[in-house]
Amino acid sequence: MNDKHAIVKVRRLVEPVQQTSMEFSKPHPLDSLTPSEFLRVRAIVNQFYPTFNHKLSFQYVGLEEPDKHVVKSWLSEPSSQPPPRQAFVILTLDLQTHELIVDLSRRSVVSDKLYRGFGYPTLTAQDQEAVVDLALKHGPFLESIRRRGLDISEVACFSQTIGWYGKVKTNRQLKVRCNYLNGTVNKYLRPIGGITIVADIEQMKISEYVDKAMIPLPKAEGTDYRASTITPPFGPRFNAAPPKPPGQTGFKLDGNVVSWGNWKFHLAFDARVGPVISLASIYDAEKKSYRQVMYRSYISELFVPYQDPTEGWYRTTIFNSGEYGLGNFAVPLEPLNDCPSGAVFVDVKPVQVQDAMCIFERHTGDVMWRHSDVERKIRETRPDISIVVRMVSTVANYDYILDWEFKPTGSIKFLIGLTGVLEVKAVPYTNTDQIKEEVYGTLVAGNTIGVSHDHFLTYHLDLDIDGDANSFVKTRLITKRVKDKNIPRKSYWNVEHEIAKTESDAKIQIGLNPPELLVVNPNKETKLGNNVGYRLVPGSAAMPLLTIDDFPQIRAAFTNNNVWVTPYNKSEKWAGGRFVDRSRGDDTLAVWTEKNRRIENKDIVMWYTVGFHHVTCQEDFPVMPTLSVGFELKPTNFFEYSPVLKTVPPQHLSWANCTK
Amino acid sequence: MNDKHAIVKVRRLVEPVQQTSMEFSKPHPLDSLTPSEFLRVRAIVNQFYPTFNHKLSFQYVGLEEPDKHVVKSWLSEPSSQPPPRQAFVILTLDLQTHELIVDLSRRSVVSDKLYRGFGYPTLTAQDQEAVVDLALKHGPFLESIRRRGLDISEVACFSQTIGWYGKVKTNRQLKVRCNYLNGTVNKYLRPIGGITIVADIEQMKISEYVDKAMIPLPKAEGTDYRASTITPPFGPRFNAAPPKPPGQTGFKLDGNVVSWGNWKFHLAFDARVGPVISLASIYDAEKKSYRQVMYRSYISELFVPYQDPTEGWYRTTIFNSGEYGLGNFAVPLEPLNDCPSGAVFVDVKPVQVQDAMCIFERHTGDVMWRHSDVERKIRETRPDISIVVRMVSTVANYDYILDWEFKPTGSIKFLIGLTGVLEVKAVPYTNTDQIKEEVYGTLVAGNTIGVSHDHFLTYHLDLDIDGDANSFVKTRLITKRVKDKNIPRKSYWNVEHEIAKTESDAKIQIGLNPPELLVVNPNKETKLGNNVGYRLVPGSAAMPLLTIDDFPQIRAAFTNNNVWVTPYNKSEKWAGGRFVDRSRGDDTLAVWTEKNRRIENKDIVMWYTVGFHHVTCQEDFPVMPTLSVGFELKPTNFFEYSPVLKTVPPQHLSWANCTK
Repeated sequence: MNDKHAIVKVRRLVEPVQQTSMEFSKPHPLDSLTPSEFLRVRAIVNQFYPTFNHKLSFQYVGLEEPDKHVVKSWLSEPSSQPPPRQAFVILTLDLQTHELIVDLSRRSVVSDKLYRGFGYPTLTAQDQEAVVDLALKHGPFLESIRRRGLDISEVACFSQTIGWYGKVKTNRQLKVRCNYLNGTVNKYLRPIGGITIVADIEQMKISEYVDKAMIPLPKAEGTDYRASTITPPFGPRFNAAPPKPPGQTGFKLDGNVVSWGNWKFHLAFDARVGPVISLASIYDAEKKSYRQVMYRSYISELFVPYQDPTEGWYRTTIFNSGEYGLGNFAVPLEPLNDCPSGAVFVDVKPVQVQDAMCIFERHTGDVMWRHSDVERKIRETRPDISIVVRMVSTVANYDYILDWEFKPTGSIKFLIGLTGVLEVKAVPYTNTDQIKEEVYGTLVAGNTIGVSHDHFLTYHLDLDIDGDANSFVKTRLITKRVKDKNIPRKSYWNVEHEIAKTESDAKIQIGLNPPELLVVNPNKETKLGNNVGYRLVPGSAAMPLLTIDDFPQIRAAFTNNNVWVTPYNKSEKWAGGRFVDRSRGDDTLAVWTEKNRRIENKDIVMWYTVGFHHVTCQEDFPVMPTLSVGFELKPTNFFEYSPVLKTVPPQHLSWANCTK
Repeated sequence: MNDKHAIVKVRRLVEPVQQTSMEFSKPHPLDSLTPSEFLRVRAIVNQFYPTFNHKLSFQYVGLEEPDKHVVKSWLSEPSSQPPPRQAFVILTLDLQTHELIVDLSRRSVVSDKLYRGFGYPTLTAQDQEAVVDLALKHGPFLESIRRRGLDISEVACFSQTIGWYGKVKTNRQLKVRCNYLNGTVNKYLRPIGGITIVADIEQMKISEYVDKAMIPLPKAEGTDYRASTITPPFGPRFNAAPPKPPGQTGFKLDGNVVSWGNWKFHLAFDARVGPVISLASIYDAEKKSYRQVMYRSYISELFVPYQDPTEGWYRTTIFNSGEYGLGNFAVPLEPLNDCPSGAVFVDVKPVQVQDAMCIFERHTGDVMWRHSDVERKIRETRPDISIVVRMVSTVANYDYILDWEFKPTGSIKFLIGLTGVLEVKAVPYTNTDQIKEEVYGTLVAGNTIGVSHDHFLTYHLDLDIDGDANSFVKTRLITKRVKDKNIPRKSYWNVEHEIAKTESDAKIQIGLNPPELLVVNPNKETKLGNNVGYRLVPGSAAMPLLTIDDFPQIRAAFTNNNVWVTPYNKSEKWAGGRFVDRSRGDDTLAVWTEKNRRIENKDIVMWYTVGFHHVTCQEDFPVMPTLSVGFELKPTNFFEYSPVLKTVPPQHLSWANCTK
């Protein structure tokens, strides 16, 4: 295994894929920790806190990112000594939480802080397995299963965080939710209703057990989703996408730096946030140089509040990144189905997942630009193409398909696909006629409510447009009255630019006719005098519907606006705070921005939340067709003219030389 | 030429395409008029109004659509006699406007109505050429050109409608806007500024001529967009999309009925609105039958108001469908670049355009659905696929890429791509520093303002969900307080369904947290008791910014809401009215709905407007990278369970047997 990079293995597909050699490339300061670095971190920490007299658990280990100026200074002279490799480690040590910085070259713990706040770190797989184990051995639960006439060996449980609901004293607890299998492999569609189980992970015991009601178990029938077991009537058959010619990936990998078309960016992986795209820059053919666009971007938090306020459900308000880790739940991707032909697959550490990310060239069948002049017999059309980095995080039932897409036009698209299995609740009903009470969702199958919920994905977008010092500009479209008496028209709109001076000026809710939102470099102009910039093209902008004073919403106050802008601060990485499990909302983006810092002509970070409400429907059963949402960052007076004007039309291939 | 269908010719690509035989298929009542039918219509009308004593011009000729119940009754027994073929004809006859219905089998004019309103019909190419001709021969204009030191043979003019601005007496007039070539083939980027020309098409003379100012002519340099002439620095080179295997289109064409996967729909073409998709129905494997979804859909109007209120510009508020005709401006599509490999191209009449539409199977690289269960070693992933019908309407400078996309999940996506050339204004400025006045747009090149404008596309969506009688439901997400004292959580949201009783209840502006909007069949339920329905998933929902009392906005009052619902009425086809040129807004969707008719459990039509504001930028020069917007209709409790659960995974192809 190549030790230089955390992203290590380029795998072969059904079709042969160009094997990218990474042996000779240099390590990059933003590379994720390598397998051997992880081992070294463990060794250093274990020496620092010997396990013979400590109960120690590694809750999070990731790269301690060097300061931005250090990275940029190294980049300006990549032959120089790279900054020292450091790891950021979160430990549970004798039931207390520590934050450590471990220096790998010095082989030492250079900082050790005891965390005294209310939250708890991201769960480990062991934490989750342990509480499930507790439940499966809990006498009263076994009794409940027996009373229902069920077989304990067919029970599948999973743990769920419980949030915070105003109690002054809290400890580290998790709920356990159990489903029945017995005739299905779908672990989420036969909930064993009426039971509430809460486990204390510190004392390792069941702390709350309620068996309130015997609710009919939803049927196994119709819940299996495997092609190997489906029975008629079959759905339609479809053609496969045409394969790329052997060896054609379209991009280059130098270490973890991807080069494709006019783009270049660094790809890393983090257990908490999943993919991290850094140093995205685009080649400007006129200026004969790469120009900076995005220093670092990742999904900072993913908040999923369920909308059932009853005993067994009200606590289900999940923070997927902070509590579970999107990277922790990365799953292996399937060549040709999860990622198209020509994709290169990469493995990740420390989560041992093969093919956890893929990089591929995408041909959508769309048009990049065109114009016809029929009279002059001119027709120029360039087909659309892009490069995509994809990871899928299957946080138990839900599959989140997370895409970063770079386009030759200079646009970056952030796409989220939601699929997988709904979280459902067992009810006595088999027809809506029988329902006389609030059920907090839709009857999606017999005895099965698909519970209403939201998804809010908050992106950390550290844009550095042509340099660090940027400003955030709101371009308002203002209706004006025509003043010239000779003009019979009454109105028009024109734009007014407002530069956000402080964080308060940059809190935006996107409603009807929102302003255009730009990050510009106030120190750089095009030849025509426009400030170079990138514009946020928002996607689905659903706002939270919980009351602002409700506990989950206090913890998720970072979703109260669609957009926030903060001055760059290396420690402000996670919008929900560092310790999100059972947090009280005292360390969120909403709190940081209360300082109302200056953000004009500074190194700034934009935070954007894509939100959507999910009223479930029968089509979501038993596996949801992918619901896609996203947004875009679009160059706006960044280039002197269209960066794709001079794109050479592609040479089309032919199957002429193939035999079927 | 095959006489049975207006869409007649399946053309060959670079790669061989399956030749679809249409000879033996039966004509369909919704087929566009065939070439011979057009000839017959002309002959019948010419006999009715002999040209020796009439000045006659055919402004519009299209199918007079049979009543819906007649079509449906024929469909239930397709071997029966089809309804009589009739044409709807709009004539300018001796300077008056007539609406005729011509019966083709009876070879007679069955109805002839003199139109006495204020509007004028859709322009013909001859109308537009004639006024350009007038301008190019107008002495004062030739003098202006001479005074500017320009060569009249390098001047390219186009006509533009002038709207209505409150005058009581109006006649049929058009503006003429002229650009310079001399060193470029781009007809829109060297405006000859300062000149206003208005021509009277009835009297065939220039009615208004103003040469106000000598404004510097923007340079030719940088405006050419042809691959054959581009000079270094070149943009990046990209791979072509992999080709489909020879002959693989993926769908069947029976006459103009397209069958693909679980979908079936009828495709027609209209000079005014472009593509018309009718009778879209989806196969329900459980019910073993096709189920109705959409009776008829097309772009009813496309309103583009420019936001420059000065003398030469204030009148530029274009209604592309009603004034020009989206179909009239269809352009031939380029195989492999405009439409991907495997596309079938179709020619249209009466606008003689080869390859005006294409139909293709689309593989986006996205995932249709997936779920991983790592522990159980289950991974099921189905790649996304769809079928797309595409037409491009190049209305002078702008290219509108109009897509209808059908997905196996039951979703229909309506996508609009905006590309082509901006409409620009010449100004004395070469840098923003020099600008001290309002310029109504962005300096996108030297001496060139890309004028701010909007696009509002209003779709006519006649949904028939499982039958004619449908209702429109607003599903509001309402924040509620938790009442149970034992629950510490304070809030949640739940849904409240409101059925729109009348047209007033169905006027919707989509802002923050809009209701979910559904069309349901109140008479059909799933087995679980949910009403079968389809949901509108809105796209970009920009609202008009002109004041409601302004003349262009009165004419475009149909854009005042994003959504409207009306009872089906065959005559309510065009949201801006039948005669849009110089119209006064007395025949729009906004006026029709003032009747506030009942819409509950009726045959209803939904109208949806996709709007967007375009603040131009330098990247839009000289050709705009495609800006895509769209919306979706999504099955919601229409199926008993996911219609793609039982989709058989595709058989992947390999290039193994190819030589490069």
